Amino acid sequence: MNAELIAVGSELLLGQIANTNAQFLSQQLAELGINVYFHTVVGDNVHRLEQAVNIAQTRANLIIFTGGLGPTKDDLTKETIARIVKRELVIDEEALRSIEAYYARTKRTMTENNKKQALVLSGSVVLKNDYGMAPGMALTVDGITYMLLPGPPKEMNPMFIRYARPFLLGKLKQHERIESRVLRFFGIGESQLETEIEDLLERQSNPTIAPLAGDGEVTLRLTAKHSSAIEAQKLLDETEQAIVKRVGQYLYGYNEDTLFTKLMERLNAHGKTIAAAESLTGGRFTAELTVIPSASKAVKGGIVCYTNEVKERVLFIPSEILETAGAVSEQCAKLLAEHVRNVCQADIGISFTGVAGPDPLEGKQAGTVYIGIATAGQETEVHALMLAGDRETIRTRAIKYGCFAVLKRLAAAV
Amino acid sequence: MNAELIAVGSELLLGQIANTNAQFLSQQLAELGINVYFHTVVGDNVHRLEQAVNIAQTRANLIIFTGGLGPTKDDLTKETIARIVKRELVIDEEALRSIEAYYARTKRTMTENNKKQALVLSGSVVLKNDYGMAPGMALTVDGITYMLLPGPPKEMNPMFIRYARPFLLGKLKQHERIESRVLRFFGIGESQLETEIEDLLERQSNPTIAPLAGDGEVTLRLTAKHSSAIEAQKLLDETEQAIVKRVGQYLYGYNEDTLFTKLMERLNAHGKTIAAAESLTGGRFTAELTVIPSASKAVKGGIVCYTNEVKERVLFIPSEILETAGAVSEQCAKLLAEHVRNVCQADIGISFTGVAGPDPLEGKQAGTVYIGIATAGQETEVHALMLAGDRETIRTRAIKYGCFAVLKRLAAAV
Repeated sequence: MNAELIAVGSELLLGQIANTNAQFLSQQLAELGINVYFHTVVGDNVHRLEQAVNIAQTRANLIIFTGGLGPTKDDLTKETIARIVKRELVIDEEALRSIEAYYARTKRTMTENNKKQALVLSGSVVLKNDYGMAPGMALTVDGITYMLLPGPPKEMNPMFIRYARPFLLGKLKQHERIESRVLRFFGIGESQLETEIEDLLERQSNPTIAPLAGDGEVTLRLTAKHSSAIEAQKLLDETEQAIVKRVGQYLYGYNEDTLFTKLMERLNAHGKTIAAAESLTGGRFTAELTVIPSASKAVKGGIVCYTNEVKERVLFIPSEILETAGAVSEQCAKLLAEHVRNVCQADIGISFTGVAGPDPLEGKQAGTVYIGIATAGQETEVHALMLAGDRETIRTRAIKYGCFAVLKRLAAAV
Repeated sequence: MNAELIAVGSELLLGQIANTNAQFLSQQLAELGINVYFHTVVGDNVHRLEQAVNIAQTRANLIIFTGGLGPTKDDLTKETIARIVKRELVIDEEALRSIEAYYARTKRTMTENNKKQALVLSGSVVLKNDYGMAPGMALTVDGITYMLLPGPPKEMNPMFIRYARPFLLGKLKQHERIESRVLRFFGIGESQLETEIEDLLERQSNPTIAPLAGDGEVTLRLTAKHSSAIEAQKLLDETEQAIVKRVGQYLYGYNEDTLFTKLMERLNAHGKTIAAAESLTGGRFTAELTVIPSASKAVKGGIVCYTNEVKERVLFIPSEILETAGAVSEQCAKLLAEHVRNVCQADIGISFTGVAGPDPLEGKQAGTVYIGIATAGQETEVHALMLAGDRETIRTRAIKYGCFAVLKRLAAAV
């Protein structure tokens, strides 16, 4: 089954909202093993909607519409499809009763145009709307299935899950399972990763391997199809192993993991606490960790030592170090990590010092970063980095690097 | 000019990301008075991309592509457009130098496929990428303008604003000026704001007034059209004055201002420094302020006193206070603000303590927030709030409230 998603609504073309319905439906259809080859967005305009449907008919056998089922004049999806597939619109008694009940319940007066919402394509399977008035519907004509869903996500999403998904599962001839897994990497660029696994990428078919880069990380989405879910998982395992053999040292997690959730999980698993001295990063490392509800166990706190004054007064960095090596130096990063660990009484002290830019600092150029990691009974390690990007990118990459380095240290400690 | 937006990327068809680029570009084009009639999303597939371009050519004279300019095999937008419009791809020397400089600066090895990013359509206007490697480009062939932009929003958005928008303005035949201004409000809800200016909203025509709510703030976008830019600005001024008369006390800024940039601007204008004690907010207040390049003048630093241990050891909160009133209390907020001011030697001390949730703390429910503001020679003020939302929303609203409260205090001090 090849699907095209057509979202109807001028608010999308004006940029008032993003087409998140297409994202939701794409995820859902991918899980069902239905290919989605095109998304189309069209305004509340009969002529252009007809045009979009005519094009979709040439390239899809499942066309899913979102939006344009409401009571107002500019809601015209049903009317347009009815004309195209030459079907009448008929009142769905159950939908009408439910609309009437809604008005009775909320003690509001039902207007004539609200009845319009109970109209469905004659002969279609009606999809109940548990969170609104306009029902959805699905109808197959000449080998093409037309599915009409409401626009508001809080109506559309549950309608899809509860009623549209089972309808589609019934249509799917063979029950091919689609299983996917996202591998998350840090510390390797997209092009380097692709070079390392070039042959795997070239001969991919099942599973498919899709790389995606963003925010200093790279992911590989593996997607396998098989009639058995267990076999599909086995296919994923095999491909993952082949990838890990090449670039396993950069793999930090799977699916919805982030470096921060992963670090929190590992800290809690090891029963370790952490505290951060943040100059360069101004508090963002601690802020990202404390977004996670379980943070209070592992995060002791931190010192945002943005000025040398605070480095000296709160973290006891000798003024000689600041004057000779400078605040942006290996020595300073080392002492900051060790001292914040002591001041906050944590197992692990981590420090971030560097130049976020745009201007150089202490004669060091933007992107110069030192990260210190101090633990009990081990030598403090300092990572010297040169990062690219604007202020925010440099800071983001620095705190992610910090997470990754602590994760490595925790892994080595086991 | 009629535009169609074509987003290229299988990650969109798999639902891994939403097509927020289309939303951004639609807003931008609407402001320029350019109609957008279709959005199309297509995967990393030459045949289907060609199909999409052929269709767009029949219904648009401006086709804007996002995505597919990267270094990897599945990035094929440039190659496909080049074939369709029968142009060569040629190396853009400036882009190549900037890519080489990036690799030199970050001491990484440039791979052969990175060079591919410097290829542009022969004869096109090159649009600089200030935040990444792939340049954009624009080329008009047979009356149709093809504009190719990178996929990552943080590269695409600034490229559009800085280089693509001026290019399009130059193309627009009739120079009706569209001038717009965004008024930014804090501390008033969207429906209350709309009620206060209901009559203005009802009789709006030129300028138009568009409210938008998000992240605890409300904005009004005023858009005026006139053949003269000066007259358009006058229309904006008049409408702004009428609005300010009603709700001026909630107005904090304009256009790209944020509460954080505004606070930084006011701190620097007053020559004042600030330090924060962050329990609830885990460092995010200081992190948001230090994103701004001029932060080093005004931000002394901060203490992330996530645990009571750090509150006692670093900020000298008496254990009696923590045991009786608790960490989430007016008294604690007051002392935290005063002590962080002293410890970091700042003019203003601000503190955030509260319950981010999801679970209650010290018998206080999620959303309970105390913000303290301490200055020299004035009584410390403590704001007791009850905020709604999840962890991140509560933290975001708290730090914005903190900014707004300090702004008010600075304004009163003049």
